[in-house]
Amino acid sequence: MSDIKKVVLAYSGGLDTSVILKWLQETYQCEVVTFTADLGQGDELEPAKEKAKAAGVKEIFIEDLKEEFVRDFVFPMFRANTIYEGEYLLGTSIARPLIAKRLIELARKTNADAISHGATGKGNDQVRFELGAYALNPDIKIIAPWREWNLLSREKLLQYAEKNNIPVEMKHKNGGSPYSMDANLLHISYEGRHLENPGAEPEEDMWRWTVSPEKAPNESETIEIQFNKGDPVSINGKTMKAHELLATLNQIGGKHGIGRLDLVENRYVGMKSRGCYETPGGSILLKAHRAIESITLDREVAHLKDDLMPRFASLIYNGYWWSPERLALQTLMDHTQNNVNGWVRLKLYKGNVSVIGRDSATDSLFDTSIATFEDDGGAYDQKDAAGFIKLNALRMRIAAKIKK
Amino acid sequence: MSDIKKVVLAYSGGLDTSVILKWLQETYQCEVVTFTADLGQGDELEPAKEKAKAAGVKEIFIEDLKEEFVRDFVFPMFRANTIYEGEYLLGTSIARPLIAKRLIELARKTNADAISHGATGKGNDQVRFELGAYALNPDIKIIAPWREWNLLSREKLLQYAEKNNIPVEMKHKNGGSPYSMDANLLHISYEGRHLENPGAEPEEDMWRWTVSPEKAPNESETIEIQFNKGDPVSINGKTMKAHELLATLNQIGGKHGIGRLDLVENRYVGMKSRGCYETPGGSILLKAHRAIESITLDREVAHLKDDLMPRFASLIYNGYWWSPERLALQTLMDHTQNNVNGWVRLKLYKGNVSVIGRDSATDSLFDTSIATFEDDGGAYDQKDAAGFIKLNALRMRIAAKIKK
Amino acid sequence: MSDIKKVVLAYSGGLDTSVILKWLQETYQCEVVTFTADLGQGDELEPAKEKAKAAGVKEIFIEDLKEEFVRDFVFPMFRANTIYEGEYLLGTSIARPLIAKRLIELARKTNADAISHGATGKGNDQVRFELGAYALNPDIKIIAPWREWNLLSREKLLQYAEKNNIPVEMKHKNGGSPYSMDANLLHISYEGRHLENPGAEPEEDMWRWTVSPEKAPNESETIEIQFNKGDPVSINGKTMKAHELLATLNQIGGKHGIGRLDLVENRYVGMKSRGCYETPGGSILLKAHRAIESITLDREVAHLKDDLMPRFASLIYNGYWWSPERLALQTLMDHTQNNVNGWVRLKLYKGNVSVIGRDSATDSLFDTSIATFEDDGGAYDQKDAAGFIKLNALRMRIAAKIKK
Amino acid sequence: MSDIKKVVLAYSGGLDTSVILKWLQETYQCEVVTFTADLGQGDELEPAKEKAKAAGVKEIFIEDLKEEFVRDFVFPMFRANTIYEGEYLLGTSIARPLIAKRLIELARKTNADAISHGATGKGNDQVRFELGAYALNPDIKIIAPWREWNLLSREKLLQYAEKNNIPVEMKHKNGGSPYSMDANLLHISYEGRHLENPGAEPEEDMWRWTVSPEKAPNESETIEIQFNKGDPVSINGKTMKAHELLATLNQIGGKHGIGRLDLVENRYVGMKSRGCYETPGGSILLKAHRAIESITLDREVAHLKDDLMPRFASLIYNGYWWSPERLALQTLMDHTQNNVNGWVRLKLYKGNVSVIGRDSATDSLFDTSIATFEDDGGAYDQKDAAGFIKLNALRMRIAAKIKK
Repeated sequence: MSDIKKVVLAYSGGLDTSVILKWLQETYQCEVVTFTADLGQGDELEPAKEKAKAAGVKEIFIEDLKEEFVRDFVFPMFRANTIYEGEYLLGTSIARPLIAKRLIELARKTNADAISHGATGKGNDQVRFELGAYALNPDIKIIAPWREWNLLSREKLLQYAEKNNIPVEMKHKNGGSPYSMDANLLHISYEGRHLENPGAEPEEDMWRWTVSPEKAPNESETIEIQFNKGDPVSINGKTMKAHELLATLNQIGGKHGIGRLDLVENRYVGMKSRGCYETPGGSILLKAHRAIESITLDREVAHLKDDLMPRFASLIYNGYWWSPERLALQTLMDHTQNNVNGWVRLKLYKGNVSVIGRDSATDSLFDTSIATFEDDGGAYDQKDAAGFIKLNALRMRIAAKIKK
Repeated sequence: MSDIKKVVLAYSGGLDTSVILKWLQETYQCEVVTFTADLGQGDELEPAKEKAKAAGVKEIFIEDLKEEFVRDFVFPMFRANTIYEGEYLLGTSIARPLIAKRLIELARKTNADAISHGATGKGNDQVRFELGAYALNPDIKIIAPWREWNLLSREKLLQYAEKNNIPVEMKHKNGGSPYSMDANLLHISYEGRHLENPGAEPEEDMWRWTVSPEKAPNESETIEIQFNKGDPVSINGKTMKAHELLATLNQIGGKHGIGRLDLVENRYVGMKSRGCYETPGGSILLKAHRAIESITLDREVAHLKDDLMPRFASLIYNGYWWSPERLALQTLMDHTQNNVNGWVRLKLYKGNVSVIGRDSATDSLFDTSIATFEDDGGAYDQKDAAGFIKLNALRMRIAAKIKK
Repeated sequence: MSDIKKVVLAYSGGLDTSVILKWLQETYQCEVVTFTADLGQGDELEPAKEKAKAAGVKEIFIEDLKEEFVRDFVFPMFRANTIYEGEYLLGTSIARPLIAKRLIELARKTNADAISHGATGKGNDQVRFELGAYALNPDIKIIAPWREWNLLSREKLLQYAEKNNIPVEMKHKNGGSPYSMDANLLHISYEGRHLENPGAEPEEDMWRWTVSPEKAPNESETIEIQFNKGDPVSINGKTMKAHELLATLNQIGGKHGIGRLDLVENRYVGMKSRGCYETPGGSILLKAHRAIESITLDREVAHLKDDLMPRFASLIYNGYWWSPERLALQTLMDHTQNNVNGWVRLKLYKGNVSVIGRDSATDSLFDTSIATFEDDGGAYDQKDAAGFIKLNALRMRIAAKIKK
Repeated sequence: MSDIKKVVLAYSGGLDTSVILKWLQETYQCEVVTFTADLGQGDELEPAKEKAKAAGVKEIFIEDLKEEFVRDFVFPMFRANTIYEGEYLLGTSIARPLIAKRLIELARKTNADAISHGATGKGNDQVRFELGAYALNPDIKIIAPWREWNLLSREKLLQYAEKNNIPVEMKHKNGGSPYSMDANLLHISYEGRHLENPGAEPEEDMWRWTVSPEKAPNESETIEIQFNKGDPVSINGKTMKAHELLATLNQIGGKHGIGRLDLVENRYVGMKSRGCYETPGGSILLKAHRAIESITLDREVAHLKDDLMPRFASLIYNGYWWSPERLALQTLMDHTQNNVNGWVRLKLYKGNVSVIGRDSATDSLFDTSIATFEDDGGAYDQKDAAGFIKLNALRMRIAAKIKK
């Protein structure tokens, strides 16, 4: 291990990665470069800078990646109406490949020979970081301290911190949040402790981004989202950049108690785990995107997308964002979005997102003259249906005749 | 056409099928047998009997099919978490194959040589009735009056009714409901008229089974559903028959404003159409079923089901319930449900269905000793993850090396 | 029907389309434009011109479409290793969309309001022609004489021909070929008559393009095909245009008795039918394409393609070449072919096509240093496999523990 | 490691597993139980018994598993027409789960706490053995010597053998076969050495089970195979047990030069590898099974099977035979085979397997009265096709109209 000279660490400034920073310096006798990304998690990044400096780090990178994150990762994922296991909007999964990419780019820039991260050996995030990193630089060395060290309990971690003069905030001394959390512009997640019993309800004060539906306003709110090539571009007529738009949806959705989720999911490493998620903006977006597709997308294209979506979701969940198969599927998904232009009107009320209208001036495939229950003036010949049914039934009729 | 001697008509007693009854007698000079099924649509069936009698029908069948409908059609469909186009719970689609089956059985019983129904030539229902009928009896003759006659406007229909002394209720004279509706224990649907503009919101007074979330109680309600082999068997500890259970969920769900849906869907006959649906019990059930599967189903089995679900949904939507491919898929779906046993707790509140707990005494695959964020005492060796990631990354690393 | 003024007919010059030409003139009192395409079927086209002239046709189009056919239809299809129902190389199916496209283009050019073709009402070709035509021009009128007229037996057809002075060659008078045939650069097909008994072997003298393996040379022949972005570009170092290359493969393959196929397939219109096919060049090409992909394509991309291939094949077989879903899938397939560059060596001998070597100077993912059974000097750490297996087994171990 | 007291070793009696036997005794100071299975590989098993005895083994199991192997593993796999990556018939993959099962059963029987095998850390077989074992006994310990020891070159292995008085046959001293081989009733495989260059042709004298097509008889041979519920049950009217039937097909196929394959495949552990295979009986069987399905299987069921087949093949290739998802898919596959009854006639000649007839007295879905090119007397109404095409085209026409 002594051949590692410089390592880029994904550094949040929190206790865990502060301990890792020190542990890397000690264990590998190497230089550590810190990389702290603003993905909209809501933390101030200045303290991370100060702490890194205090730990003797010479190369400190603090980056605002919010726009890139939403534009190049979140939105492409939503083009496929991506949900994992019927419910999870992949808020954590989709942030990892961007961090992996920046770690590799910074390693190249700083001539580092390794990268490191604070994900544990039981979770999906280690896989996502590392598959991404290997795909982008096959020769990179990766240090995953949680798989190497023996600080496997919180107590040992605190002891190590104190012994090494790493500032431990009061909340950690007191046990801190009972939950393991992750946040970015798409979501905030909770795992661990009280949630490890899948039969038990989460405590109300766990949730941070959304009010409960009970506490949401008694008045509904209606918004209109405009889509261009499958991506949302404006809210109520106001055009916004990708990350601004998602932040706005988060704010509105959170206010109305939208986007809470409590589920048991299947991790790629083989175990089931309980997670709670708040995805206010994403929940609105998924509903809206399906609605705009419903009038602009061809039936068979929509069904093809639906058939492929679970596979696409698994690829992202499992960390294969940078794989050739995700790129191939993305090509297909993107291709289908060319005509996905138009607007969707939604009513938000105490946890509910309801589509109440959708249309497209340029690309609607909804043909009222044909769909009408009224006389259509010959636009559709009902007699065609007889032949359609007859031929579709033919194979079953032949089979039924034989059975007789 | 003169070779048709007796026809079994799916008869609701409403205006349309009353006109059809007369039209069949006139056009085909044949005897008509009426079949009226109680699928939980909420209409009284006695008037249908009286009307049929008055029209000279000698063989009148009125049947309560509620239990069979829910037990043998709705629940098998829910085992697959079936949704069409990401949203529609297939309430109409799933009732048609049962009616087709009974039409064929009654034709056999009454020595009829044909069946008839009131579905139009533009919709999916004609396909569902007829594909089902042909699959069950390849030699059956099918009369679809809407594809044959020239009563294509409501006005002409009313004229025909009046000319033939078919009682027309006041509501029809006044134009009646502005919507084309269908109801059974799973749902009630609305199409047509005001909904033919996909950009316009449905009027609040259209909805019949659910209150609006706004009018739902201010207090949430918690229920617990028990599952046995993937089917719900009790609510709050009270065991019920399939149709009773669904009726109970409808009542609870409707009270809490659950299960409204407004969408544009793709019909099998090739056009897009706007539909609004109320599926209170089904919406609760889908959520609950996914939750019980989340702790009892193997990951890859769950993903296999998710991959096949859209296809399964299309088969049902398109009318292929009695096809060999639906039966083959059902075999797989049913096989996966053997271990889907346990309970789910849900909170219902103003349109929201939230899972707040799930467990299985016999079949939980949730292994706390492994999933824990705390020290697991060696149940899981984090070092295994390194090899897991390395080999999963191998093909991408080799590719990346070549690109270099 | 009198509103049709000019119709473009897909005209081969043979008996059937000559009768159709006359029948159109008579029945619709309209002008007929003939379109005869050289797709490599091997017929001389001059007689078609003469016959059309003799029938009073003023606008006669004779076109050599061989290059476009192979380059823009056959090769894109082969990029997906497309086979229908495990065996059929889609020789007929892939030619129809090109003809449909030209019919529509010529209708536009000649201001015709309809098109017509000689496909029967039982086959797939009518579907392929007409779906293609409708997709490209939604307002086109289509006349399918076989579905309209009453010349449903060969005898009636001959009578009509004689009555109308349509020259009937001796072979037709004698009953002609016992088979219904179709040919183009990709294949020649046989259906009907003796083949309608699926238990009976075709007669040896039916086959036209290939010698029997028994009669093929006693010496094998080795060829090398070079691929560029998934398409073959040269044989034995000689660069050729798409259609020249396929013609060359046909000649070589035919000589060696390669590419005969005898099968029962499922038609889109609902029946099973027996078909015999000769696809000498295509059979070589499929084998070669899979071989070049085997060293240049990522595993998961290859598997994704294999999973989607049967669907892609059905789309082409069923006539959906011009559909948005085929285009979406083609986008994916094409995207995957960027790295499919290299050569394949094949041995041809008495019906056998054997790959005996394959490599890519630029894109091989075959890494001998890792794959070797010898000491690899640390390129691959065998210990990684332990963790890989352990985590892949985890979910099954947890389940097995519960069953205990 | 000292806690292992008894280990069941999959023992062939060859050099590698003889070294492993000694190494286990030495390294783990444990008792070794040997298990040698006859899967039709063609080796005599008596020497394995003698060698085990000589090595001090007290519990020696020699078992004839040929019938179970073909009946319960090979035939269920062929019901799905299973091929991996378009070409490989999975001869090695399908034998491993049976061995894994017997290892676990013998461990239980002999109170052993571990099992061991001779598969290397680079291949798929370690995965297949171990996933199977873990699925069947989650607590089993597995020793994979090739991942633990340092005998990574052939030279070291030979030194170890000589030092420990393990008899080394002359062929090994001379370098032995240049290939790594595996054989059972389904196939024999070759990997390594000369084959590690994917551009080089295998030497003719490598092949052991088949003559070259060149050396096969100049006379073709015709055989008829009868199927019952998708499994072959007789050849030329002679009913045989599963393993006898496959052995017979191997003998016939081998004589006619059938079933050689040379390919580059993608291993589950992430690398590409070159393999050559001889599968004479299996190649005949696949062709015959597809042929009998072609007349007895419904189109959509056949397509469903084709869509799922690559996934099914990957599961078997990757070692997931004992997984719940393979079992779920098998349920579906088996269900579809109920009507797959009838006979297939095949011509075998110099490497070619040609279907020349197929029929089913009880389950043929081939309806000549409908499929005929002659007048069908009204069995099929060609006019139905017009409506069929019109409605299938509708969505594309609507889209085309909008583009205009």
